[in-house]
Amino acid sequence: MSKVTLKKIAETLGISTATVSKALKDYADVSPTTKSKVKALAEKLNFKPNSYAQSLRTQESKIIGLIIPQIVHHFFANIILGVIKSAEKEGYLVITLQSDESYDIEKEQLELLLDKNVDGILLSLADNTVRYKHISEIINDGIPIVLYDKISKSIECNKVVIDDKKAAYNATKHLIDSGCKRIAHIRGRLKPQTTIDRFKGYKEALKAHNIPFDKSIVFEAKNIASFEDGKNVADEIFLNHKDVDGIFAMTDLLATGVLVRLKELNVKIPKDISIMGFSNWFLTRITTPKLSTVDQPGYKMGEEAFKILFEQINNTRKGIKAPYKTIEIPTEVIIRDSTK
Amino acid sequence: MSKVTLKKIAETLGISTATVSKALKDYADVSPTTKSKVKALAEKLNFKPNSYAQSLRTQESKIIGLIIPQIVHHFFANIILGVIKSAEKEGYLVITLQSDESYDIEKEQLELLLDKNVDGILLSLADNTVRYKHISEIINDGIPIVLYDKISKSIECNKVVIDDKKAAYNATKHLIDSGCKRIAHIRGRLKPQTTIDRFKGYKEALKAHNIPFDKSIVFEAKNIASFEDGKNVADEIFLNHKDVDGIFAMTDLLATGVLVRLKELNVKIPKDISIMGFSNWFLTRITTPKLSTVDQPGYKMGEEAFKILFEQINNTRKGIKAPYKTIEIPTEVIIRDSTK
Repeated sequence: MSKVTLKKIAETLGISTATVSKALKDYADVSPTTKSKVKALAEKLNFKPNSYAQSLRTQESKIIGLIIPQIVHHFFANIILGVIKSAEKEGYLVITLQSDESYDIEKEQLELLLDKNVDGILLSLADNTVRYKHISEIINDGIPIVLYDKISKSIECNKVVIDDKKAAYNATKHLIDSGCKRIAHIRGRLKPQTTIDRFKGYKEALKAHNIPFDKSIVFEAKNIASFEDGKNVADEIFLNHKDVDGIFAMTDLLATGVLVRLKELNVKIPKDISIMGFSNWFLTRITTPKLSTVDQPGYKMGEEAFKILFEQINNTRKGIKAPYKTIEIPTEVIIRDSTK
Repeated sequence: MSKVTLKKIAETLGISTATVSKALKDYADVSPTTKSKVKALAEKLNFKPNSYAQSLRTQESKIIGLIIPQIVHHFFANIILGVIKSAEKEGYLVITLQSDESYDIEKEQLELLLDKNVDGILLSLADNTVRYKHISEIINDGIPIVLYDKISKSIECNKVVIDDKKAAYNATKHLIDSGCKRIAHIRGRLKPQTTIDRFKGYKEALKAHNIPFDKSIVFEAKNIASFEDGKNVADEIFLNHKDVDGIFAMTDLLATGVLVRLKELNVKIPKDISIMGFSNWFLTRITTPKLSTVDQPGYKMGEEAFKILFEQINNTRKGIKAPYKTIEIPTEVIIRDSTK
């Protein structure tokens, strides 16, 4: 049933679209009176719930939507794969959309997915999404949605994340343990939570090891998926911060940019400067020296995200309101040759 | 309408499922008699074409299916992005499935997509797909399908390809022009067409420059997306073919494996051996030395594949049978530091 029709029925009867949807699906938590009112009106609007066999009987599309900030991206591509493969096992197909890290596109794509009557949505927030009304509306409408990777603590729903703070703490600790005394950090812009948490982990590791925090060696990359931004920070460190002996970049692409540029500048890695990335992209195994990093298992995250969405879809169908969960996927520091 | 119902009607009336589908969509090329027979039977089977408003009126799902051999793959991920972005502009969403280079999975996934009533399908053949009945059935049913990248010349339909033979010819020619006299080739298994054509291009370039072809320096990688397979071939060349001074690998991953392993063996690149990849993955810019390769524009291929599918969907709807086209996406040799 189109969202427009759902809305029309809801408005006419003065109830929520979620109730309309549930009434048409014969959910247990809608009263028989409401159900018969909804069905009568649906009939009147030329919508006959019993005519379109299976898909109308259950109102299942057996399709879910997946909104991802970037597709050509090792970590996110692994998430897509994890989602698609787990979904397929349960008989679900996946519509994938790329939000280009844009709030406006993300908003529009959620509408597109709802119009296709998807059974649920997996969403990783775009970097510039800082308002959440478009998401809370979906939650209030009773449509299953799970946030993964880039989430917001202000949104109450099921979530799958890694413990970015802990992972960043461990990455920084490895630099400290291997002898670095002056460790720079390359972060992203203020939001989203991943940037905040990795920055926090970096600061906490310094603090725990009595290394003073110095904001002059924290660099903000415009685009954390940019090799070039990494190169620019390398230039900046080389010119103005000769005493830096370790760099923790919040992504492998930034770290790789730093590594390539410092090599061009004849800096010895890791003798002069140690470099630590984050994500364990394939490319970290082919740089010279090979890049130390934090393994962030995308496939596993995709699998878990689908699993929890699938649970929520089934619960919603049965009228069960389960408490929201936040699942944490473990990470691991991978020590290669760019650190001592 | 489910495929099962379509088939049932087709069998009962002794006509094709394509005709049933067209009759229900009121296509111009189905006779009024057939249309009324089909509609009457559909009604009897409890399928009321006029009840489910828009989607039944046009039988459009505005969803297409995309089957891709691998998702975590720079070139294919770019294709996905090109498809999704172009589809979105025309109001289409895309269900993506990964065939894992398996004929059985590919077959099953085509069925899954048909069951979801997709308006069309984009398919790149799995490496071990050598029979095509599952595809010709779809074509005969009148469902728009476009083959992209990995195609078969035995299938008659719309196709989007690169000229692999020309691209491989140019890659090999660059090795010859830069002074290589004894050029090895790393290819994939017998099928698909990409492997055949790149191998042909390699041979033709040798012939055109009077370099004898020697099958003892043509190596077959089990998995052309394997870094490790590249390393193994490097070992083989190092041990048994000391006179090789150039290597043309059919993928960047194979070429990168060769490069990394030869460096470990203290072979000077490109002084002792020149290496040429294929595809222009991001990683070719971060190897040391940077890898020469052939740019194969995935995004553009995705765009064109959707464009031609969209045309075919519209033509089918109007009852127009346009001749099949094969669109060729141009490639370009990218000269970096792994060749002289």
